[in-house]
Amino acid sequence: MGTAAPISRWPVPELADLPEDIRARILAVQEKSGFVPNVFLVLAHRPDEFRAFFAYHDALLLRPSGLSKGEKEMIIVATSAANSCLYCVVAHGAVLRIYEKAPLIADQIAVNHHKADITPRQKAMLDFALKVSRDSADVAEADFAALRAHGFGDEDIWDIGAITAFFGLSNRMASVTSMRPNDEFYLMGRVPRAPKA
Amino acid sequence: MGTAAPISRWPVPELADLPEDIRARILAVQEKSGFVPNVFLVLAHRPDEFRAFFAYHDALLLRPSGLSKGEKEMIIVATSAANSCLYCVVAHGAVLRIYEKAPLIADQIAVNHHKADITPRQKAMLDFALKVSRDSADVAEADFAALRAHGFGDEDIWDIGAITAFFGLSNRMASVTSMRPNDEFYLMGRVPRAPKA
Amino acid sequence: MGTAAPISRWPVPELADLPEDIRARILAVQEKSGFVPNVFLVLAHRPDEFRAFFAYHDALLLRPSGLSKGEKEMIIVATSAANSCLYCVVAHGAVLRIYEKAPLIADQIAVNHHKADITPRQKAMLDFALKVSRDSADVAEADFAALRAHGFGDEDIWDIGAITAFFGLSNRMASVTSMRPNDEFYLMGRVPRAPKA
Amino acid sequence: MGTAAPISRWPVPELADLPEDIRARILAVQEKSGFVPNVFLVLAHRPDEFRAFFAYHDALLLRPSGLSKGEKEMIIVATSAANSCLYCVVAHGAVLRIYEKAPLIADQIAVNHHKADITPRQKAMLDFALKVSRDSADVAEADFAALRAHGFGDEDIWDIGAITAFFGLSNRMASVTSMRPNDEFYLMGRVPRAPKA
Amino acid sequence: MGTAAPISRWPVPELADLPEDIRARILAVQEKSGFVPNVFLVLAHRPDEFRAFFAYHDALLLRPSGLSKGEKEMIIVATSAANSCLYCVVAHGAVLRIYEKAPLIADQIAVNHHKADITPRQKAMLDFALKVSRDSADVAEADFAALRAHGFGDEDIWDIGAITAFFGLSNRMASVTSMRPNDEFYLMGRVPRAPKA
Amino acid sequence: MGTAAPISRWPVPELADLPEDIRARILAVQEKSGFVPNVFLVLAHRPDEFRAFFAYHDALLLRPSGLSKGEKEMIIVATSAANSCLYCVVAHGAVLRIYEKAPLIADQIAVNHHKADITPRQKAMLDFALKVSRDSADVAEADFAALRAHGFGDEDIWDIGAITAFFGLSNRMASVTSMRPNDEFYLMGRVPRAPKA
Repeated sequence: MGTAAPISRWPVPELADLPEDIRARILAVQEKSGFVPNVFLVLAHRPDEFRAFFAYHDALLLRPSGLSKGEKEMIIVATSAANSCLYCVVAHGAVLRIYEKAPLIADQIAVNHHKADITPRQKAMLDFALKVSRDSADVAEADFAALRAHGFGDEDIWDIGAITAFFGLSNRMASVTSMRPNDEFYLMGRVPRAPKA
Repeated sequence: MGTAAPISRWPVPELADLPEDIRARILAVQEKSGFVPNVFLVLAHRPDEFRAFFAYHDALLLRPSGLSKGEKEMIIVATSAANSCLYCVVAHGAVLRIYEKAPLIADQIAVNHHKADITPRQKAMLDFALKVSRDSADVAEADFAALRAHGFGDEDIWDIGAITAFFGLSNRMASVTSMRPNDEFYLMGRVPRAPKA
Repeated sequence: MGTAAPISRWPVPELADLPEDIRARILAVQEKSGFVPNVFLVLAHRPDEFRAFFAYHDALLLRPSGLSKGEKEMIIVATSAANSCLYCVVAHGAVLRIYEKAPLIADQIAVNHHKADITPRQKAMLDFALKVSRDSADVAEADFAALRAHGFGDEDIWDIGAITAFFGLSNRMASVTSMRPNDEFYLMGRVPRAPKA
Repeated sequence: MGTAAPISRWPVPELADLPEDIRARILAVQEKSGFVPNVFLVLAHRPDEFRAFFAYHDALLLRPSGLSKGEKEMIIVATSAANSCLYCVVAHGAVLRIYEKAPLIADQIAVNHHKADITPRQKAMLDFALKVSRDSADVAEADFAALRAHGFGDEDIWDIGAITAFFGLSNRMASVTSMRPNDEFYLMGRVPRAPKA
Repeated sequence: MGTAAPISRWPVPELADLPEDIRARILAVQEKSGFVPNVFLVLAHRPDEFRAFFAYHDALLLRPSGLSKGEKEMIIVATSAANSCLYCVVAHGAVLRIYEKAPLIADQIAVNHHKADITPRQKAMLDFALKVSRDSADVAEADFAALRAHGFGDEDIWDIGAITAFFGLSNRMASVTSMRPNDEFYLMGRVPRAPKA
Repeated sequence: MGTAAPISRWPVPELADLPEDIRARILAVQEKSGFVPNVFLVLAHRPDEFRAFFAYHDALLLRPSGLSKGEKEMIIVATSAANSCLYCVVAHGAVLRIYEKAPLIADQIAVNHHKADITPRQKAMLDFALKVSRDSADVAEADFAALRAHGFGDEDIWDIGAITAFFGLSNRMASVTSMRPNDEFYLMGRVPRAPKA
């Protein structure tokens, strides 16, 4: 797209110029996804921060949890939309659609989670996440009790809070850098994959 | 979708029970679109209001204007997102993608119009629309001057304000009725149409 | 008043230049009220929008309802004040005072409906209307339940929501056009009418 | 009015039970106005606070100033409306209409001072007052410069700030006590006074 | 401190130039505290307002009350922090630490009273005070009931509301004048006093 | 303090039970500071997240930068206060006082950075940080230009944004866990250190 904005306000390093561990991680994701999500390139501008960012990301998202992988992505999409973060809504909306095999869910949660085709338990989870995102200082016992009433345990609640907190960081970095979502994300999970030949 | 919410909190009339003019309009849109957008069915609960709603809609959107058809839809998507109106973001997002032949634009404008692939003139248009939507009482000469600097004339500015005002009404009706977007909208304009045989 | 602002930022048509149906409506209201409320002249700048606006207005306000005519005006005054819309607060404040034969009520509702001389049922009605006006996306079952507890039926709730939505449109048009309230409105309903000779 | 709310949530003392100086002040205002504004009765519940309140009031409002008496009342009406204080908007609206001999001005300023029939200098004065009322911590050199550009001197600016601050106190006391405006205020200054016989 | 800001945007009078009663009060506070808190000097710019301010202050803070002296200071610190008023947070934070013999309490309440080492009754008191400070128009019966459930009587509630209202005034004057806290306040109550010889 | 709140809502591990690398880091900070800041114990509940958190922290704060160490702490204190995060305001307020050898500065910045004894350049830095913290989606070219006018380079701006983003994560974790600041922090940097014997 000729008039499209660049992918970052800061310089984006060449793959060849990156430290080996970072280049390896990027090549791995490219292998798996078929393209390199721009967050890898934009954050590679600062290798140490890149390493810490993805270590944190993996610690939160790869860890066994009472939340499903799709539920974690719901939290990311809802709070990223509350922060008006284009990159995160588009990229994690794609992941959410794929994990949940639900082509409508990401748009629903991004616009108004009250109207989404999700369970009351998931709505309570997003209510908590949005309170952490917007008014963390006012999170109180009643908010924890509301989650426990839906069966969330203490470790699950840590997960909800920590994923919200981490993507609050990610949202702010993406907005300040004007991180551009890859075009590929917009359609992912909206149409059935072509069967492999 | 078995667990999907109903299309309205209020009763939805059968087509056969509707006044002739309303049924005719609905059949016409079905003929053209291939399905009946739910807004027609939900609002048909009150025929007089239905007639006034669509008369207003047509007066604003079918009128010749300094704004393109796509630009009018940009206003609708941006202000509907600011009002967290699921129906309007999804339905008009589809129309916007089709008019602009731009599969990414609706998601961009819904999340953060500052980051969208649109012109500075269009961003100024959306800044004004969002101010009318959120703080109409504070709209001042400086806001008009900013539009004129981008070449908008007085009739164009009326269009921006009036489309924003009308869809503010529409957003509130859609949210109060829990108007459900048709599943068809989500994918429209995202993939090339199959060529007609 | 020499220094008074004009009645609109846009041109105001001459009565003689208007389409016949619009001129007839304006003459009828002048006959009934003794003057032409400026909203008729300001919106006549766009005849098709004028027709749709007043068709919508009539559909909502002339329809039989579980809300009294005065209660509908309470909604208009409360939500127009929340939108800081001078024209609507002043004009509909006048109508409210007359319908309710209560010279203090409009000022009370415009400033703080919690302190107004109205019933708890009417305060609940205005709480709902103000939520629709400010946060329609968050309107939830609990809000409907609060109205039902006061005896409001589903059609009454539609009325509250739809009147709020329509005057949200009206407020935005009035503020953007700087629609000036007629001087006559300010005193209407505050003093007993002189008996007819 | 049989169903009217009481004039305070707290007990209202009998005139006979009040300390002599307070009773004298109340009788003097009754002599002058023809009725006792409820603020005198409500605050007399705490004589020492009453004395300090009116001493502060007089220090600010009776002092010679670059602001006219009407301009001081504009500040009171605009900031009291921003605080949704019924007593202060109604009572000081009356005083403002009388001082300015302008029957429309109080309603205009209470709803939206941008649309009021006042001078640009007065609008700048109210912009500053509203900023002090809402965001005093952010008042900055640019705000002072905007006032000086309209010819306000340093003592005038102190007056604007201090009147805003004092009526912020008054607004909070009136809202917490549910101080009821006297019915007489609503009509004052709206109609020409009958000539004295 | 060479680069420190002046203590007021307005002229600060010399002690010798002040009216006798004001000079006497200032000398008394200096005798007691070991320094002259800047609020006395800044407000002495307007002697009549100074007298009313301190009369009000004394009426509220020296009066017997169901609130302890420390609790009154908690209200001042919490609401002054909500108004981002540097002078009042620093000066009354010092007084609070001394009254409560609690070196941590002022910082806790200024940042987030939910996390402070205070009783649930005191947290309810601060919840009410903060509502009066931010949204006095919405104070309702439920807010009074919450206080009564903690044993607060009607006069106590007046105290909470009135102290909040008065320091709202004080906060606005301090921010508009850029009133500088004396350096002495910052450390008061944080370290044990040296025993007297 | 007997009635003090626990240091976390979640279990806090024993030092002996921690992985070696985490225990070593904690012992090192204890050796240097004389006590273990609670953030280390609270976050050690999740070792992988602990490691990523401190790797990120070090990447941002130990990196050479156009910002001084004190300036980085100013950003942390200002944005943590905007998020009402008790732990971060208290702990980083201590560090800020020590780095800047300025016992008043942390309280000033926490309450109202406009009134702090810092340079105009530092105020511009905090204006940007607070915009990233509150409204990152609206950060625009004009915000970057304001920083460049004070001599900040692109890497400095990344630092401001990234430190703000990271401590936004930290603030949310601290508030959700009710992380309690160590008592030691409150006094650090307020009084001269006793000379070593």
